[in-house]
Amino acid sequence: MSDRVTRKGKSQPQKEEPKQAKKQKVQKESYDLVQLQDIAHQLRIHSIEMTIASNSGHPTSCASMAEILAVLFFTKAGMHFNPKDPGNFGNDRFVLSKGHAAPILYAAWSMVGFIEGKELLNLRKIDSLLEGHPVPKLPFVDVATGSLGQGLSVAGGMAYSSKFLDKINNRYWVLMGDGEIAEGSVWEAAHLASHYKLDNLTAIVDVNRLGQSEETSIGHDVNVYKKRWEAFGWKTIVVDGHNLNSLTDAFEQCRNAKNQPQVIIAKTFKGKYLEMENKEDWHGKPVPQAQVEFVKKQMKQQGGFTLTPEVPTQIEKPQQSHFTLEVNYAVDGKQSTREAYGKALVGLSKTDANQQIVAVDGDTKNSTFSIKYKEAVPTNFVECFIAEQNMVGWAQGFSCRGKVAFASTFAAFFARGFDQIRMGGISGSQVKYVGSHAGVSIGEDGPSQMGLEDIAMFRTIPNCVVLYPSDGVSAERAIELVANHKSPCYVRMSRPSLPILYPNNEVFEIGKSKILRHHDDDKILLIGGGVTTHEIFKAAKQLSEQDKINVTVLDLFSVKPIDHDGILNAANNTALKTILVVEDHYSEGGLFEAVSSSLSLNNEIKIHSIHVDKVAKSGTPAQMLSLYHLDAAGIVARVKSIIQ
Amino acid sequence: MSDRVTRKGKSQPQKEEPKQAKKQKVQKESYDLVQLQDIAHQLRIHSIEMTIASNSGHPTSCASMAEILAVLFFTKAGMHFNPKDPGNFGNDRFVLSKGHAAPILYAAWSMVGFIEGKELLNLRKIDSLLEGHPVPKLPFVDVATGSLGQGLSVAGGMAYSSKFLDKINNRYWVLMGDGEIAEGSVWEAAHLASHYKLDNLTAIVDVNRLGQSEETSIGHDVNVYKKRWEAFGWKTIVVDGHNLNSLTDAFEQCRNAKNQPQVIIAKTFKGKYLEMENKEDWHGKPVPQAQVEFVKKQMKQQGGFTLTPEVPTQIEKPQQSHFTLEVNYAVDGKQSTREAYGKALVGLSKTDANQQIVAVDGDTKNSTFSIKYKEAVPTNFVECFIAEQNMVGWAQGFSCRGKVAFASTFAAFFARGFDQIRMGGISGSQVKYVGSHAGVSIGEDGPSQMGLEDIAMFRTIPNCVVLYPSDGVSAERAIELVANHKSPCYVRMSRPSLPILYPNNEVFEIGKSKILRHHDDDKILLIGGGVTTHEIFKAAKQLSEQDKINVTVLDLFSVKPIDHDGILNAANNTALKTILVVEDHYSEGGLFEAVSSSLSLNNEIKIHSIHVDKVAKSGTPAQMLSLYHLDAAGIVARVKSIIQ
Repeated sequence: MSDRVTRKGKSQPQKEEPKQAKKQKVQKESYDLVQLQDIAHQLRIHSIEMTIASNSGHPTSCASMAEILAVLFFTKAGMHFNPKDPGNFGNDRFVLSKGHAAPILYAAWSMVGFIEGKELLNLRKIDSLLEGHPVPKLPFVDVATGSLGQGLSVAGGMAYSSKFLDKINNRYWVLMGDGEIAEGSVWEAAHLASHYKLDNLTAIVDVNRLGQSEETSIGHDVNVYKKRWEAFGWKTIVVDGHNLNSLTDAFEQCRNAKNQPQVIIAKTFKGKYLEMENKEDWHGKPVPQAQVEFVKKQMKQQGGFTLTPEVPTQIEKPQQSHFTLEVNYAVDGKQSTREAYGKALVGLSKTDANQQIVAVDGDTKNSTFSIKYKEAVPTNFVECFIAEQNMVGWAQGFSCRGKVAFASTFAAFFARGFDQIRMGGISGSQVKYVGSHAGVSIGEDGPSQMGLEDIAMFRTIPNCVVLYPSDGVSAERAIELVANHKSPCYVRMSRPSLPILYPNNEVFEIGKSKILRHHDDDKILLIGGGVTTHEIFKAAKQLSEQDKINVTVLDLFSVKPIDHDGILNAANNTALKTILVVEDHYSEGGLFEAVSSSLSLNNEIKIHSIHVDKVAKSGTPAQMLSLYHLDAAGIVARVKSIIQ
Repeated sequence: MSDRVTRKGKSQPQKEEPKQAKKQKVQKESYDLVQLQDIAHQLRIHSIEMTIASNSGHPTSCASMAEILAVLFFTKAGMHFNPKDPGNFGNDRFVLSKGHAAPILYAAWSMVGFIEGKELLNLRKIDSLLEGHPVPKLPFVDVATGSLGQGLSVAGGMAYSSKFLDKINNRYWVLMGDGEIAEGSVWEAAHLASHYKLDNLTAIVDVNRLGQSEETSIGHDVNVYKKRWEAFGWKTIVVDGHNLNSLTDAFEQCRNAKNQPQVIIAKTFKGKYLEMENKEDWHGKPVPQAQVEFVKKQMKQQGGFTLTPEVPTQIEKPQQSHFTLEVNYAVDGKQSTREAYGKALVGLSKTDANQQIVAVDGDTKNSTFSIKYKEAVPTNFVECFIAEQNMVGWAQGFSCRGKVAFASTFAAFFARGFDQIRMGGISGSQVKYVGSHAGVSIGEDGPSQMGLEDIAMFRTIPNCVVLYPSDGVSAERAIELVANHKSPCYVRMSRPSLPILYPNNEVFEIGKSKILRHHDDDKILLIGGGVTTHEIFKAAKQLSEQDKINVTVLDLFSVKPIDHDGILNAANNTALKTILVVEDHYSEGGLFEAVSSSLSLNNEIKIHSIHVDKVAKSGTPAQMLSLYHLDAAGIVARVKSIIQ
């Protein structure tokens, strides 16, 4: 399928633009303008035909941006890219944040010769890569879009990467709908881009006035947009979005801007040049076939286009390094796993010759300990301030540029970026998320700061690895593992200082648990993670010493994929074929459900659970563990009641 | 415990302010100013002492806002409220969005006489309601705060409710930190508040410059804030946040503003009047005891305060009605459950004499069919545009004001508001969330629009009811059930038109499933929800007719709480004591894990699963169901392989 999409059609020859006298240039431009307008119309026609073929899609949302895409794809002012090689690392990149306009994106890539014309009519078909909303199975797409308001964040991370890390002078272009400007994530992205003076980033807002179900809240009042973007530090240009001269001029101004990202506020009409121009109730609906003729009549040339994009130098995308780590803890030492995160990043940086590791944080770096990495490798740490959605988007942007991106904040606050994390999952984005302050064991700060649903959240992401280390050694090894793993990953870190459990050279694997205590006469299997690993260990000792009851102690470590065989064997080796899972997390979607579902086909083993079973509150960490029976005393009592 | 907090200390007598000549008023104000400043200092001292007692907390974040709270709680320009009755429905309400400054909030409620002074020193203790961040167990708190950037949204919903629905002239005051202004949710809230001209809403930004881990991105550049809020349509006042005259004047201007929400940008200093004023590295740390004396020395009077707030008229909070519904489907009819949602809201409105039902949506009302409610009861439908975080916050605001708040969008896009939904869970907020377009069965639009993790997400919310209806009748009954249920609730709706399964008078219950097909010789139990209920039903008929294999068909309906007994009995009655769960959702946290964990202590029953097991794509609904083996053919094949 990929072959079918990427097979080249007739590509245009790549010519150097000749130096011309001013008069000649004007003439050339006039000629080009006729072509450009026809190209815009042809993009409309493709969009109409594609959505008629798929009997779904958004042709009127495509029609409002046809002139914008014509300038972007076919002028020197627009994108500089190699249409034969969308993967060229030196290309400008285009992010279609209003992903529902996918047809016109595919049409543009067809008109530059990358997608075969007839493939366009396979839009939204099950065996085509031309999905209803763009996904990065296509080499000209960096991230999946379609959940609105996310494109600018990802482009921000990519633009930062090019400007400050890779030092490549390519540019990033993001097209947004006007409706999505209501999403707060857009303003998080706008703020950070101007803070870091990303002058290689241009946003274009297609102000076509009409949302899905009614007029947008701002309508065609482009000055409102202008004021907002200016207030957020952007160079702001308002244009008639159907005027090719104005657009070209605006794009050129953006290309030449310094120290500021730029936004083009393009006043447009939904369904422009169609009979349903500027009319409500045409969102997300194919238009009649007659509209093809209607647009065609407005074309001057009907084809034979010669305009081509400017092609930049070819640059190879860097290969990711393999990272290794020295771990060094005293046997009787203590360490919080969150602090081990910072140490591990610093350790990894020693084998990161190309400085590919990038860490972002949302003003919690002195709590997550990502600050250690900032201190060690300041160029590769990016403070994203208190804006988690955008932080997640930036991390995905770094990942798109071949970086090994780590994003850290409190486990609870990743909930703020769940939709971005979800879309990252669809993209196959390889961000490593690290959540600190998991569970009630953080104590006094109370429930707003406690991550009690983070494992459930990250487990839903397809192919996402979820690790839950219990000491400094396993925490550092977890970070080493995810740094080298090609998928989204989540590592759950805890606040309290915890005893070291493992020797420094202990080998950990994704998908494998660890047995910490085992006897031949074990009655049941205790499973824990993080702080509860220590509590089940204490409980096991106490049960053995005071009650002569032996139990197996298993540190789950890898929550997803889960160590099905290891757990099953350990449970089968117990006298009662019984498991007790103890977790500092809600029951739903956490360790207990991961274990239960893993063993759902086994009809010999019983599985009990201790978890956080109601809304938490403030108190000391020890009181909190006790309140939910997650401490050794609670576990001992539960084991006894199970055994009796 | 609640008694201890709410027992009154010495309250100040509530006096009418005497009419005075201007000169006298100035003298009185001068005297008041001395008192006010001393009150601010006393608030500082309380905050210092409380955080020393708890050995944690944020005294310097309290110190920057002491003058603001003094004016808010102790002047006619500030909050109008009854300090003896924080629950008075006619009171102004205060939302402390920067929840980590909780100590000074509690101190203020102590100084107006509602909290006993000695209780303050129980801050963050396990048996105190004075948690690390405010929670609505306290009657002067509407919603839990502590995840930053959420307060303004909730206040927006409350303000809309007072202004347009209850027509009460109380006001809403929201105090935000400067760091949290980076959260996009703040700009979503700012946008909608000005769109609806909420002149009864005042935001105060405590611009103390210092975040948790470094200076905020904007620092003390108050003009940047001014421009941004103005651009978002707010009346904007910049003041010295430690100048009581300026603050009082600003508050009065806000009280008198019309047709615009107002924001006071207060330039302040973190740790003001302490020795660590404006110094970094003091975030979230108690200060030495000596700071109490340091502040005390700056007081003029040391107590004997006589200032009191203005007390508004007493208004009773309305009681919620009980709603009933007439359901009317033809036996052979078809209906999408999403459309049934709109019909049900309209139906419920017929028994909603006090118009308590409020529906909000994020520009998807013609897809979720909440548009039907807008058409029927336009006053009680609020379009929130494409800003789901704020939409969730507004719904919580309506719920705080005694409304029965329904919030609808695509199931997938509730992920955008997960942190707000999480905080709503901590608040015990009773919003009814309705997610449409669940699962791969939406077809061509592709994975960005498919809710495949929504059940996992909502199941993590404590006490949240999760219902998953499979036809028009059960969908309308689900809406009727949640309208009358006092907890957060989620109802999952599907896009496709589905046959009617139940008679109109069928009685549904939260926590109960339905058996749709059963014979004495059933081999296994099939469990489905939504579209898969129809597919397992088709599969069961086919297995019976073509293969003489009988199976039980169970429509789960109530995912949380789950019908443990119903499922167990049905499974036990099958020959193979085997379940096959079929769900249009990822495996993690969905129906399969809900069933598996529910039966974890049973060691007779095996549980199989068919679910969406990889990133989805575009295609027709039927192709999508087939691709993941969720259709009748896939189910038949799986049943046969299980039985063999």
